[in-house]
Amino acid sequence: MSDPKAKTGAGVKHMKWWGWGEEGVAFHHEDKPGFAPFVDFAIGIDLWKEPQSVAAFSSISVPKSQASAAFVKQFSAIVGAENATTDDESRVVHTFGKSVRDLIRVRAGDFPRTPDIVLYPADEAEVKQIVDAAVAANAVIIPFGGGSNIVGSLEPLANEKRTVISLDLGRLNQVLEIDEGSGLARIQAGAQGPDLEEQLVAKGWTLGHFPDSFTHSTLGGWVATRSSGMQSDKFGDIADIARGMRVVRPDGILVLRPIPSASTGPNVREMIVGSEGRLGVITEVTVRVHRKPEKREIIAYLFPNWQAGLAAMHEISESDATPSITRVSDWGETKMSFATSKESKGVSAAVTKGFGVFLEKIKGWDTERMCLSFIGYEGGNGLVSRNQKLVGAIVKRHGGVKVGKGPGVLYDQKKFDTPYLRDFLLDRGGAADVSETSAPWSKLQGVYDGAFAAAQKAYDEIGVKGWIMAHLSHSYHDGACLYFTFAFEHNDQPLAQYDIVKSAIQQSFIDSGATISHHHGVGLEHAPWLEKDISASGVAVMQGLFDATDPLGTFNPGKVIAAPGVDQGNSGSALHAPAATAAPAKAARTAPAKKAAATKAAAAKTPTRVGAAK
Amino acid sequence: MSDPKAKTGAGVKHMKWWGWGEEGVAFHHEDKPGFAPFVDFAIGIDLWKEPQSVAAFSSISVPKSQASAAFVKQFSAIVGAENATTDDESRVVHTFGKSVRDLIRVRAGDFPRTPDIVLYPADEAEVKQIVDAAVAANAVIIPFGGGSNIVGSLEPLANEKRTVISLDLGRLNQVLEIDEGSGLARIQAGAQGPDLEEQLVAKGWTLGHFPDSFTHSTLGGWVATRSSGMQSDKFGDIADIARGMRVVRPDGILVLRPIPSASTGPNVREMIVGSEGRLGVITEVTVRVHRKPEKREIIAYLFPNWQAGLAAMHEISESDATPSITRVSDWGETKMSFATSKESKGVSAAVTKGFGVFLEKIKGWDTERMCLSFIGYEGGNGLVSRNQKLVGAIVKRHGGVKVGKGPGVLYDQKKFDTPYLRDFLLDRGGAADVSETSAPWSKLQGVYDGAFAAAQKAYDEIGVKGWIMAHLSHSYHDGACLYFTFAFEHNDQPLAQYDIVKSAIQQSFIDSGATISHHHGVGLEHAPWLEKDISASGVAVMQGLFDATDPLGTFNPGKVIAAPGVDQGNSGSALHAPAATAAPAKAARTAPAKKAAATKAAAAKTPTRVGAAK
Repeated sequence: MSDPKAKTGAGVKHMKWWGWGEEGVAFHHEDKPGFAPFVDFAIGIDLWKEPQSVAAFSSISVPKSQASAAFVKQFSAIVGAENATTDDESRVVHTFGKSVRDLIRVRAGDFPRTPDIVLYPADEAEVKQIVDAAVAANAVIIPFGGGSNIVGSLEPLANEKRTVISLDLGRLNQVLEIDEGSGLARIQAGAQGPDLEEQLVAKGWTLGHFPDSFTHSTLGGWVATRSSGMQSDKFGDIADIARGMRVVRPDGILVLRPIPSASTGPNVREMIVGSEGRLGVITEVTVRVHRKPEKREIIAYLFPNWQAGLAAMHEISESDATPSITRVSDWGETKMSFATSKESKGVSAAVTKGFGVFLEKIKGWDTERMCLSFIGYEGGNGLVSRNQKLVGAIVKRHGGVKVGKGPGVLYDQKKFDTPYLRDFLLDRGGAADVSETSAPWSKLQGVYDGAFAAAQKAYDEIGVKGWIMAHLSHSYHDGACLYFTFAFEHNDQPLAQYDIVKSAIQQSFIDSGATISHHHGVGLEHAPWLEKDISASGVAVMQGLFDATDPLGTFNPGKVIAAPGVDQGNSGSALHAPAATAAPAKAARTAPAKKAAATKAAAAKTPTRVGAAK
Repeated sequence: MSDPKAKTGAGVKHMKWWGWGEEGVAFHHEDKPGFAPFVDFAIGIDLWKEPQSVAAFSSISVPKSQASAAFVKQFSAIVGAENATTDDESRVVHTFGKSVRDLIRVRAGDFPRTPDIVLYPADEAEVKQIVDAAVAANAVIIPFGGGSNIVGSLEPLANEKRTVISLDLGRLNQVLEIDEGSGLARIQAGAQGPDLEEQLVAKGWTLGHFPDSFTHSTLGGWVATRSSGMQSDKFGDIADIARGMRVVRPDGILVLRPIPSASTGPNVREMIVGSEGRLGVITEVTVRVHRKPEKREIIAYLFPNWQAGLAAMHEISESDATPSITRVSDWGETKMSFATSKESKGVSAAVTKGFGVFLEKIKGWDTERMCLSFIGYEGGNGLVSRNQKLVGAIVKRHGGVKVGKGPGVLYDQKKFDTPYLRDFLLDRGGAADVSETSAPWSKLQGVYDGAFAAAQKAYDEIGVKGWIMAHLSHSYHDGACLYFTFAFEHNDQPLAQYDIVKSAIQQSFIDSGATISHHHGVGLEHAPWLEKDISASGVAVMQGLFDATDPLGTFNPGKVIAAPGVDQGNSGSALHAPAATAAPAKAARTAPAKKAAATKAAAAKTPTRVGAAK
């Protein structure tokens, strides 16, 4: 085993132990004059107060590794001592993803259970050795990609008595082969977004998969959680992009050829996609790749209100237009976009210079209610201009106006910066996170209204001034994704408060005919609603699959579906679907007030001002 | 139970007990002067000889139903006596699908096992009662849609000792609801193609799913076998079309909401799609439906050779064009298309009138090698003309020429008639069937060459003059479907001969990196190659799913994956992947020569001349 202080995993990059992104990068608001007033308006937090910052790692108490010396020796021998570690910070980095629940707990030093050892295999053969040895030892394997998960898919079960391995795929980061004649690339599962895209672009290709987490997530993670990207309207969700794959299982390597479409029984590929580690360790995926398009543009539009924006997106999906991005924010998110713009740039610049007056005076809009939309176009010049013409006519028909390319360029540059906001707000006593769903077009307004009503009721219950906003993205023939962001000023029981709000929104999805997740996965966080989404018999089918293929529960047990009758003990389980056995939110499991207070008292650390401007 | 002669199943339509389609409809060649010479050229059969026709049903010996009187009474009570039958013809109709293997056996009276009772439930509640009673009685349920299956998914296992129910969904044939605001229709699983399309069209919608079997197959069957339609380039395969579903299982009704896309773990919907009855009985599917397009055209093109046609289809798939159909036949199938045209119509008419001379003299083509292509266009006038322009340029770049709309109109009208040819040839001593696959673009020429070489080797082995031809259809970003048709003059061991040819072609798919089926399913016929396609571990995952969700083997046991270690006894099992345990083709299970001779001697029945002209 390596010296805890030495670099383990041969330079595999990880995010901050306490938050999103790399050390030294953070959101800042000083050059965005509209942001502080917006936050005050939305959740009543004064951004000009001194932020509390996270404690030094050394002040955090980390549970000891439960791996025996013999276990550490055995598994270190497989990957080499320099690629195995039990050091505290590595184990903490591999304990959680980056949801606000995760961030609250990690800052508070609230670790129900950490992995006991982190392993960085070099290749599939080492993964296979680890899997076989873990099964023989009745240990637990939790595959780890970029660590960006926000639904509790990465944390060990609190009550887990067995030795827990976090299997970090970070060294499997190569584009192995490009089949130029088919537009297919064979890529190792641990390759992070920018890394694999760089390797592809060097050979003239792009994957076209850009989730919000892109900079810190991996191909294997995208497949394991059934991810979508912001250009999925054109390139498809990861389930459409991933064709072949290799998965290490106890009975061998599961190998699926890269076949465009097949009728070979229940689709095993579609079982691996979304499996969150429960069916084995994905080591390699063959994906569809594309040539750089002749033209690529993102155009901003404004609609007088949400209903108009929604109707326009629906009509675009029914039309002959084939945009790569369809996105419209509601008035709240539009306000937030304006508020995160620098004065001289972005949407606010375009709109303030007389345009706002035009909209109000000439068009008669209530600009407080207007909604910002981004539509992406990719392809040959002819296709792009045709699509812009088709979309332009539809926008006009719904009372919208074209703003232009400028805001789209900025959106494109800054699209991956949003996750930094979680940390920024936490430093200032604000809890913010997201819930996303999809539903048929005819239900979307109901889903939207339902989530807002549910959030408001939850805010009333916990007695806070809360905020919720949304956008539509990912249009399909028959429906679309709605993506909600919610925030509130938390008290010293932030997890208990969060659970109430998050549970209310998730339940509203179910009540209005939507799904519990369009592209974030299930993990521990959404598991309580799975039965309501896909029915008890659907869950039984999935449970049967897990039980039959992993009888020991070696692979990420308890995720997607909780082991029946087992109190997994994780605070994630505090989330509850109301109509279930209706256990009250387990406040006892949230971060103790004392620890939180200690954190607040810790020395503030001012982050370097590298920002997430829009 | 009903009187055998009475109409059972309240008017549910079935195909001929001995062949494709309705009684009185058949292929004929007398008005197609090129057809007899073509067949003589291809497989050396003289079509002007008196055809042998099938025996009268009364001369066929049908095994008795093994259902006890108590069993019949119990299950008849569920559906009503008029919707349950043990009569011979009903049981024979429900024994097989319509592959040439099925037709050879049914004509020869070779029934390894028939269902013991056919039930026609009225609704999901009755299906649920049947499922529960069948589980309690340890009986077998084989769901039955239109009976068009050609991979052995419908026949009971020969060694099945339990009572076998054929569960005919034909009375569940209603379009229940159209969500006009989302383009979704809730349709009962037993609705046949023309019936559901008629109900949709009456309300201004179309499903857009048109497999070759369309006129005699059902929505539930399409879902259960993972079907594709000829316009799937635009509308998607059935896996893309089917969104919500209801499946009756012993533990309840599995209900999946119609969600456009979701990240709710391993995708249960994608487990039901392709399940061939093994996970329960599909009673209802919510599907994407579309408004009738402004314009719909199919244009015929000709390419100088197969390589040019293949390259053009690939370039179309990479371009900004979005056709609804991409199809190109090789020279053999092109020859066949010309041969099935009436003298005054279709492709031959278009080509013979000076056009052939132009191609040969001016363009310098070897017209023996030219390849016919159909490209479909659907959408607004603008999209259709833009797509035709884009495709036109690509066709030209690959040396192709546009023929025009006439042949496309005829193709469109006659596209569902091809299956009648199996019966026509069987009447004349010819065995013909199909094998289809898909693979990445870069492998398609190898797949094509491999299948041809394998078929030729097999023909040499059995000592016949055989024929094989192919077309490409269903283009994807990364690959396409290749669809092979093969035929030969059989001797008195037609099944043994067929097994050798079919096995050779299936094995060639595996050897060249293709899948064992793009859209026909697995059944018994393709099961021997499943492991080579999706790997042993992939099969183990699927087996685990089946075992866990159906521990008694109630639901269509032995299909997709054979029960391990069980000799299922079906002659379908004669097919074998060479590298497997290499059991010789079980000639003993093929139609006995004596029976075949008896069939030949039976009185010929001249079919009405309603034809399958092209």
